[in-house]
Amino acid sequence: MINRSMFSLGNRRSVIRDIFEYGAARKAQIGAQNVFDFSLGNPSVPAPETVKQTLLQLVDQTPAAELHGYTTAAGDRHVREAIADYLNRTYQADAQADRIYLTCGAAAALTITLSALVCPGDEVVLLAPYFPEYAVFVRQAGGVPVVAACPAPAFVPDMAHLAAAVSPRTKAVIVNSPNNPSGVVFTAEQLQAMSDLLQHKQAEYGHPIYWIADEPYRELVYDGEPVPYPTRYYDNTVVCYSFSKSLSLPGERIGYILVGSRAAEGADLYAAVCGAGRSLGFVCAPALFQKMVPACLGQTTDLSVYKANRDRLAGALTHMGFTLAQPGGAFYLFMQAPGGNAAAFCETAKQFELLLVPSDDFGVSGYVRIAYCVAPDVIERSLPAFRQLADAYRLHEKRG
Amino acid sequence: MINRSMFSLGNRRSVIRDIFEYGAARKAQIGAQNVFDFSLGNPSVPAPETVKQTLLQLVDQTPAAELHGYTTAAGDRHVREAIADYLNRTYQADAQADRIYLTCGAAAALTITLSALVCPGDEVVLLAPYFPEYAVFVRQAGGVPVVAACPAPAFVPDMAHLAAAVSPRTKAVIVNSPNNPSGVVFTAEQLQAMSDLLQHKQAEYGHPIYWIADEPYRELVYDGEPVPYPTRYYDNTVVCYSFSKSLSLPGERIGYILVGSRAAEGADLYAAVCGAGRSLGFVCAPALFQKMVPACLGQTTDLSVYKANRDRLAGALTHMGFTLAQPGGAFYLFMQAPGGNAAAFCETAKQFELLLVPSDDFGVSGYVRIAYCVAPDVIERSLPAFRQLADAYRLHEKRG
Repeated sequence: MINRSMFSLGNRRSVIRDIFEYGAARKAQIGAQNVFDFSLGNPSVPAPETVKQTLLQLVDQTPAAELHGYTTAAGDRHVREAIADYLNRTYQADAQADRIYLTCGAAAALTITLSALVCPGDEVVLLAPYFPEYAVFVRQAGGVPVVAACPAPAFVPDMAHLAAAVSPRTKAVIVNSPNNPSGVVFTAEQLQAMSDLLQHKQAEYGHPIYWIADEPYRELVYDGEPVPYPTRYYDNTVVCYSFSKSLSLPGERIGYILVGSRAAEGADLYAAVCGAGRSLGFVCAPALFQKMVPACLGQTTDLSVYKANRDRLAGALTHMGFTLAQPGGAFYLFMQAPGGNAAAFCETAKQFELLLVPSDDFGVSGYVRIAYCVAPDVIERSLPAFRQLADAYRLHEKRG
Repeated sequence: MINRSMFSLGNRRSVIRDIFEYGAARKAQIGAQNVFDFSLGNPSVPAPETVKQTLLQLVDQTPAAELHGYTTAAGDRHVREAIADYLNRTYQADAQADRIYLTCGAAAALTITLSALVCPGDEVVLLAPYFPEYAVFVRQAGGVPVVAACPAPAFVPDMAHLAAAVSPRTKAVIVNSPNNPSGVVFTAEQLQAMSDLLQHKQAEYGHPIYWIADEPYRELVYDGEPVPYPTRYYDNTVVCYSFSKSLSLPGERIGYILVGSRAAEGADLYAAVCGAGRSLGFVCAPALFQKMVPACLGQTTDLSVYKANRDRLAGALTHMGFTLAQPGGAFYLFMQAPGGNAAAFCETAKQFELLLVPSDDFGVSGYVRIAYCVAPDVIERSLPAFRQLADAYRLHEKRG
């Protein structure tokens, strides 16, 4: 009698959460220090000190009724202006405060954007590998997910696959770079190629195809490479951003939607974003964390920890004979499962207390995701276990 | 090409928001002190000092990665246990921590609950007068709102009207007491009558009908009357609660869903709540404000201010010859519009710089809602304007 599809979503947890819960139980059994949990993208590096000082100052010095009161549904005007100014200064993003809508994190930004865009039966293209919740969010909005592979081993957008996935029913493409789960950062040339293709398709079909840029990992890159700003490559862009990873605030749910200033039907789309936020029950983004944003724009958690983790783990795994996607950003390694069966490989890994996530739910087979946003000592202590795992698969150590 | 129903929801703002925006413009024109804005339920009384001290202590003394990290989707276990304990101690609610799901406020609690319950075409009964967003939320979940009048002038549940509104397609009834907009508090006898009727209907149709208790105003009562706890009257109950009004934190979006421990399919329904929260993009309720809750349970903002406002304004308006619903709780007066045309009356009121909300969008004609959660001096200074309004309608002053 209840809604069975919601029951299924709640009852069959995501595979990531399942492994995380297994890990919690296993830690209770054998001690937390003996389990190497690489399952969840929960940042271990604390928020920058500015976050703490800003929160203390706001709570201590702002009258409570003003601090904690409703903001307008789109968010505090002053905060939206600060974000637009920051994006324009940093990326020449051509952002406008009145096209920004503050949200309870990137997940809310995505569900609101999809509800605003999708009409029943519309297709939304996901570039595999992709964050599994994308498919859930597209279906929630009444859409149909269509997958276009970014082929192994590079996992970069492939124009032939993308062209084949786009149809007259395509309403949007979700682009996630730096990518969860692959860690790959898409280059300016790759964005331009996608832009050219989608512009061609728009002209052919006579209607806009929106580019939904999901960017919670924008700042998490480690080799000095730029993360090109999507509004500079494509007009019909909606950016979904979150401060969860850049400021290590995943539990606080603060992010935003930016509708590109040159987006087709942009004013109407922004109104639809406001309508979708209202309809889904988001009233406004958390007020205290809205007001924290201006002081923290451009700041990040200590990314050198993630970089050191990546360098140490990627180097060691490659040396052991494993094969990795180019791990330029986010805080994930995407590693080929020797033997090709990701689920079986993850089960074997569990024997050595290594918790990895098989790639199948990300729309790719034969890989595992390793979330290296852990404390550095976990990396160090896990290496013997990875060595045993490599031995179990008879991998050959690379000569240095 | 975008979703037009979302566009309409965003473009045609709620009538309450429209009047609020008119008020903001008018204040800029003639000075804030000259506009008497009774349009919005935005608390003027600050959060209790415990909120401030708890937030300062949490931010200052909890490691940031722990404080701001993801909680489980249902919310921090310790917080849910504290809430269950409080409800059981205070109301003998038979609440269980593993049937509580923390949400971004009551609006999210309602959209999540409705998505968990409603199958396409299911009907959800609203008791008029009702908060206009209920109809939006029911439609978002794929349901059909069906209205049962609580007839003027008492605005209490009417069993004949409720019986006529319930059908074999009824999935739930939304019950809101203390009521927005009427201020009426439903008595134990009225809850029992509704319970008897719904139990009879459930037996007749052979399936559960859920009682969704929307309770953001639970603590805001002024005459010492109890607000009966719904799980004590009806098994198939889901409580949607928010700390927005009790703690004056409407912008922070913190509340919860409680699935009654004896609810039919209770475990499955709770799983569906988790699935709906996931599907709508709520990840978890804001982590800092989750952790604030245990220290603040049972506390409230200074309700004596609202009581004084109510007594002063209700007394004066009645004396001027206006007719009010029994204003036992929440922070609204529901006043008959002399002449019977609420929109016309509100336009006339604007001539005296009084901003009132016509009742039509609440599912009732001929009344206005007056939100008295304003600073006490606004009440005092508005009285001459109300007097002029009464004179314009040639009302007769009551002899004291």
